[in-house]
Amino acid sequence: HEVAGVVTEVGSKVEKFKVGDKVGVGCLVDSCRTYQNYDDNLENYCPQYTLTYGAKYRDGTITYGGYSNSMVADEHFVIRIPDSLALDATAPLICAGITVYSPLRYYGLDKPDLHVGVVGLSGLGHMAVKFAKAFGAKVIVISTSPSKKDEAIQHLGADSFLLNRDQDQMQGTMGALDGIIDTVSAVHPLLPLIGLLKSHGKIVMVDAPERPLELPVFPLLAGKRKIVAGSLIGGLKETQEMIDFAAKHNVKPDIEVIPMDYVNTAMERLLKEDVKYRFVIDIGNTLKV
Amino acid sequence: HEVAGVVTEVGSKVEKFKVGDKVGVGCLVDSCRTYQNYDDNLENYCPQYTLTYGAKYRDGTITYGGYSNSMVADEHFVIRIPDSLALDATAPLICAGITVYSPLRYYGLDKPDLHVGVVGLSGLGHMAVKFAKAFGAKVIVISTSPSKKDEAIQHLGADSFLLNRDQDQMQGTMGALDGIIDTVSAVHPLLPLIGLLKSHGKIVMVDAPERPLELPVFPLLAGKRKIVAGSLIGGLKETQEMIDFAAKHNVKPDIEVIPMDYVNTAMERLLKEDVKYRFVIDIGNTLKV
Repeated sequence: HEVAGVVTEVGSKVEKFKVGDKVGVGCLVDSCRTYQNYDDNLENYCPQYTLTYGAKYRDGTITYGGYSNSMVADEHFVIRIPDSLALDATAPLICAGITVYSPLRYYGLDKPDLHVGVVGLSGLGHMAVKFAKAFGAKVIVISTSPSKKDEAIQHLGADSFLLNRDQDQMQGTMGALDGIIDTVSAVHPLLPLIGLLKSHGKIVMVDAPERPLELPVFPLLAGKRKIVAGSLIGGLKETQEMIDFAAKHNVKPDIEVIPMDYVNTAMERLLKEDVKYRFVIDIGNTLKV
Repeated sequence: HEVAGVVTEVGSKVEKFKVGDKVGVGCLVDSCRTYQNYDDNLENYCPQYTLTYGAKYRDGTITYGGYSNSMVADEHFVIRIPDSLALDATAPLICAGITVYSPLRYYGLDKPDLHVGVVGLSGLGHMAVKFAKAFGAKVIVISTSPSKKDEAIQHLGADSFLLNRDQDQMQGTMGALDGIIDTVSAVHPLLPLIGLLKSHGKIVMVDAPERPLELPVFPLLAGKRKIVAGSLIGGLKETQEMIDFAAKHNVKPDIEVIPMDYVNTAMERLLKEDVKYRFVIDIGNTLKV
């Protein structure tokens, strides 16, 4: 569901694209188009959207996403990729990128000099660092792995690093953050993160642990109108805006391009979190059909 | 900490009040006055505020709140009570009233025709119904007690009533509310409440259960940028605004005025939730000193 390619054919009514254009398709290939969400450019919150991979179109056929040598998509759900962006380094923007860009925008964490925390340094987390830096934020990476400190600061350009388990470090940053993008999909405590927030600070969850998290309520109240919120990818209009922003500000995911026949190895490495930070499969050159 | 009375003396530098003015004091009698919170009129979020009852002033003396035949307060922490409001029916506004008014305002739930849920029909809850109605909302009371239905609709003027445990009722209201003021201090499930929210809907907790609540994260994400937030009383400027709004729109708590020597009985009745909805002690006429 992070697909980038080149247009090879267009239907007779297509207006946005022509053969040869660089384009991308993200998580969605359809939505109901009747709800308010469609008019609001929030197809991602349509209760009847169609996922790009492993879902069913209206006609009952299965969606296969990018695992194919060609795909057909409605122009509404296709993103234009500017010439200056490479296809391989653009694909992960269309899901991971928009997943962190959208909440940074919507929750007002896109202003210069805000202090923005990023919890977890994964595919989502490393994009959150890059977009927050592009917005001009001071970025604090919060992680349970001390080994990620150098990576966060020296490689990704974060301003500082907090070890979640280090009481002193956490205490020293209490009340310092305007917002936190929480990318962690494992069950984890919210209390220390709430403590890091300033008045009116926001924790935005962009991945969903399987089990409920413990929400301590008093720190939300006495901790000054703090908010725990959620955000899920983004609408098509905002996804295009994000891609154009990425092109302008040179925001790129760190990727490892692999051939199709490496995919099982890649899956094993994913389980060990052994990737920085996204595998991109070169379908065009390596898928044998 | 919900005190109303008449000014009997003023210090030489007092500018806001004169002898004979009707005034009130809420939860706070002091704050540090150096933090940004003070300039922002958010003394309620000052990390070093002084509570009106059971706390210590800077000089080490104990605060006794309204349980005394007179009290001395800094004019900054004193609210003006308009002539049209009775002292007894104004006192509970200064804590319960502002506790629900502030989040209705801050979280944008103060616009006409919004659908606002109120969870729990207690001292806080009944004020939330009244203020939300005064803002022009459609108000839905959500409760675990079927006995509160008539009370909510016929007496307090709510537009509808939802029984928390009734799956059909809850299902029929899924995705219908712009926001919820949650006044329940017992541990309770958030999942059904999150389900009641529209896209971008907000649950605001104004009381704090002792133990953490279970926060299911996926419904916050896929449920369209929903928010769980907290709010704690209000600043002095907003408290004055709330009192003036209450006077203009005739918003009054339901009270039972009691003499001082009834206070132990009142405490017993409070434990049985046998009060609609606030006891107000007539200190002036019944406290024997």
